[in-house]
Amino acid sequence: MHPNYRGQFQTAVDQVRSEGRYRVFQDIRRKRGAFPKAIWYPNEQTQRDIVVWCSNDYLGQGQNPCVMEAVKSAVDATGTGSGGTRNISGTTHYHVQLERELASLHQKDRSLIFTSGYVANEATLSVMSRILPGLIIFSDALNHASMIAGIRGARCEKQIFRHNDVAHLRELLAAADPSAPKLIAFESVYSMDADIAPIEAICDLAEEFGAMTYCDEVHAVGMYGPEGSGLCGQLGLMDRIDIIQGTLAKAYGMIGGYIAADSIIVDAVRSLASGFIFTTSIPPSTAAGALRSVRYLKQSGDVRTRHQDRAAALKARFRAADLPFIDGPTHIVPLLIGDPVRCKAISDYLIEVHGLYVQPINYPTVPKGTERLRFTPSPFHTEAMMDELLQALLDAWSHFDMADTSQGQTTKHAS
Amino acid sequence: MHPNYRGQFQTAVDQVRSEGRYRVFQDIRRKRGAFPKAIWYPNEQTQRDIVVWCSNDYLGQGQNPCVMEAVKSAVDATGTGSGGTRNISGTTHYHVQLERELASLHQKDRSLIFTSGYVANEATLSVMSRILPGLIIFSDALNHASMIAGIRGARCEKQIFRHNDVAHLRELLAAADPSAPKLIAFESVYSMDADIAPIEAICDLAEEFGAMTYCDEVHAVGMYGPEGSGLCGQLGLMDRIDIIQGTLAKAYGMIGGYIAADSIIVDAVRSLASGFIFTTSIPPSTAAGALRSVRYLKQSGDVRTRHQDRAAALKARFRAADLPFIDGPTHIVPLLIGDPVRCKAISDYLIEVHGLYVQPINYPTVPKGTERLRFTPSPFHTEAMMDELLQALLDAWSHFDMADTSQGQTTKHAS
Repeated sequence: MHPNYRGQFQTAVDQVRSEGRYRVFQDIRRKRGAFPKAIWYPNEQTQRDIVVWCSNDYLGQGQNPCVMEAVKSAVDATGTGSGGTRNISGTTHYHVQLERELASLHQKDRSLIFTSGYVANEATLSVMSRILPGLIIFSDALNHASMIAGIRGARCEKQIFRHNDVAHLRELLAAADPSAPKLIAFESVYSMDADIAPIEAICDLAEEFGAMTYCDEVHAVGMYGPEGSGLCGQLGLMDRIDIIQGTLAKAYGMIGGYIAADSIIVDAVRSLASGFIFTTSIPPSTAAGALRSVRYLKQSGDVRTRHQDRAAALKARFRAADLPFIDGPTHIVPLLIGDPVRCKAISDYLIEVHGLYVQPINYPTVPKGTERLRFTPSPFHTEAMMDELLQALLDAWSHFDMADTSQGQTTKHAS
Repeated sequence: MHPNYRGQFQTAVDQVRSEGRYRVFQDIRRKRGAFPKAIWYPNEQTQRDIVVWCSNDYLGQGQNPCVMEAVKSAVDATGTGSGGTRNISGTTHYHVQLERELASLHQKDRSLIFTSGYVANEATLSVMSRILPGLIIFSDALNHASMIAGIRGARCEKQIFRHNDVAHLRELLAAADPSAPKLIAFESVYSMDADIAPIEAICDLAEEFGAMTYCDEVHAVGMYGPEGSGLCGQLGLMDRIDIIQGTLAKAYGMIGGYIAADSIIVDAVRSLASGFIFTTSIPPSTAAGALRSVRYLKQSGDVRTRHQDRAAALKARFRAADLPFIDGPTHIVPLLIGDPVRCKAISDYLIEVHGLYVQPINYPTVPKGTERLRFTPSPFHTEAMMDELLQALLDAWSHFDMADTSQGQTTKHAS
C-alpha cells in the first residue's frame, strides 16, 4: 500500500480517537445456562467472570434449551449453511415455514426473511422509490442507521420530522405535493432513548394524507403485544401498518431480519431488492431456531411479564438513587453520562473493578453530548444482581465525581 | 393500503413477469450425509427426491461432520445468537479466533467479519471515499451486485473498465487525475461466467498508477491456492492485494463474509462503516463452524483436487455432447440458453421430469440475452450422477428443440 493511503487511513482512525469514540470490542463468551453471566477475555492470558448488562438477547432466548435444540436438530437433519441465495437453491423448507409463521404473527399475507434487520430496512426502503416513482419518505429524526441507509439508497425526496413530533409530521405532510406517493418510516420502540412512537397518531396522519406506513419493530417483537407481535400488536394497530419490519436477532435470540406485509408488497421487494436477491440465505438451522423461538414466545406471556417487572425493578433502584436515567415506558434503561471519554472510562471501571459489563454508547450511535450507558435487564437479572449493579454504579459515580454533573438530568418521556 | 399503491406494486411485479424473469423459489431440504441429494417440496402435499446441481456449498462443507459438530458444540457451550452488535456485547471469543484465522489464511495483519459477503463488499467499498477524499474507483464491468452497491454508496467518481480488459483499465487509469486516490475493484473468479481475472496484470497497473487493489475472492476461497487461500494465494499475489474480501457462505459451508487487510485499513472500516457497526454480529456457533471449516480446508488439498476433477469431468461430457457451455478455467459450468422463458422452462422440465435441480439464471443476475443454467459440480457429484444429468439434458434439448439455436455457441475464456 502506498504510504499516502496508509496515512489517510491512520488519519481517519485518529479522528475517531480524538473524539473519544474509538471502539474497543470486549471479547466475551457467554456461558450456556448461566445467562446473563459470561466470561470476559481482557487479554489472551486472562479470563474473568462477568455479568452482562447490555445484551439485546433481551429475553435470554439465545439460551433457551428448546431453541438450542431446534438449531442442533436442524444441523443434524440438513447440515449447516444454506449453500445459496434464496433463488439459487437457498430456499429451504425451514425458510418457508418461518416466513409463514412470521406472516401469521403479524396478521399479514406474507413475510420475507433477510440476513439481518439492518439489511431488511436498507433493502426494503431502498427499493420503494423504484416501485413508487416520485415517492417522498417522511422519516423520524431518530430512526436507526439502517433505515437512514435505506432512505439514502432510495435517492428520493425525504422529509425528516422531529422525533415523535406528530405536529411537525403533519406540517410536512400538508406542505408536500398531494399527488406524490408518500411513506412514513418510524420505529415503535427507540432503542437508545427507551421511548415509543405515537403509532396511532401517525396512522391517523397516514390515512388523512394517503401515505403508506413502515414501522421498525426490532426492539418490540417477542416482547410486546399478544403472542409477542410487537407494539403495533399490543395497540391493535397492525392492520394500519403497511410494512412491519422485525428482527430475529434480539428477543428471538438468533440472527436475521424480516418484513411482513401484503402479498404484493412482499412479491415486489423479493423481486427487486438487491440486498435480498444477491446474498446467501440464512442457514436452515437459524430459520429452525427462530421458528421455535417465535412459537415459544407466542405462548409465553409470563416471560414478557417478568421482563417488564425486571425493567421496572431496575428503574426503581435508579430512581431511588437519583441516577440520571431516561425514565421511559420500555424495557431499556439508558443512564446519561454526556461525555464520550468519561462514558468509556466508567464502562471500563465497571468491568475491571466490578465485573459488570455495560458498553459505552457513543456517537454515531447517539448524538454527541448524549453519551450513555444502556442497561437491558432481562428476565434472568436477579434482585441480587441489581443490588450489586447499584452499588457498583454508586462507587463509579463517586470515583468519577459524577454527582455534580448529573444533578437534575433525569429525563422523562411521555408514553 | 391505498389502491393506488397496490396498483404500483402490482405493476412492478407484472413488469418482472412480462420479461420472463419472475423468480419462483424452489422449496427444498437437503439431507445431511446424502449431499448433493435433497428433498423437493413442489407443494405442501408432495415431497420428491432430487439431486442439487446448483449449490454454492461448492465443497459440501455444510455437511462435513466436523463442521456440524463445531456448530453444535458452540451452541451447547454458549447458546445461539450473539445478542448484540460487535460493539455492544456481540464480540465473542469465537469471533476473535475466526478473525485471527482468516487474517493468517490471507497473510494479512487483521480481518473483519461481516454478516454476509454482500455486506462486506457494500460496507467496505461504501466507506472508502470517506477515508480517501477525491477517490476514483475503477470497477470491472461484471463485478457483483454487492460491489456495485458499495461503489454506488461511496458516491465518488467511478470508472467502469470492460470485463477483464487490462488495456481498457490502463487507458482509464492514465486518463485520470494523477494526484487522485485510486482503487481498483475486481473479482478473482467471476461466478456467472466461470472465468478469472488477470490479477497479476491488474496488480502491475495498480503499482504503476499508485492505486489500491480490492479483490473479491468469494468464489475462490477454500477452493484455490495453498490452504484454500484463494486465487491470489495460488498465484502468490496476496501481498499485492490491499483488501481481500471473502465469504464463509460458499466453500466454507456457513454464512457471513469478511475482509482481510492491513491493520489500519481494518481499524478504519471497523470504526466507520455503517453496515458493520449497526448490525448484530454472526452467532458464535456460526463463527465456530466457519473456524473449523477454514482449518479443515487448510489441510485438505485432496478435496480441492477432487473438486477440480469433478468439474473437468462434467465439462468433458458437455464438450463431447456439443452443449453450448462456457468452457472456463474454474469449477463453475454455465450452460447458455439465451432466453429467460426457455431457461425457466428447461429448469422446470429437469426438476419435474428428471428430479434434477438447476436454477435458471436470468436478468439481473446476468445480462439479458445471456440467460443460463449454471452447474456447480462438487466433490460429491458421482460419475453416475453426471451420466444421468447428461441424458436428462439431451432429452431437454430435444424436447425444447434446442439443437438449432445452440450451434456454435460454446465460448471459451482465456485463462
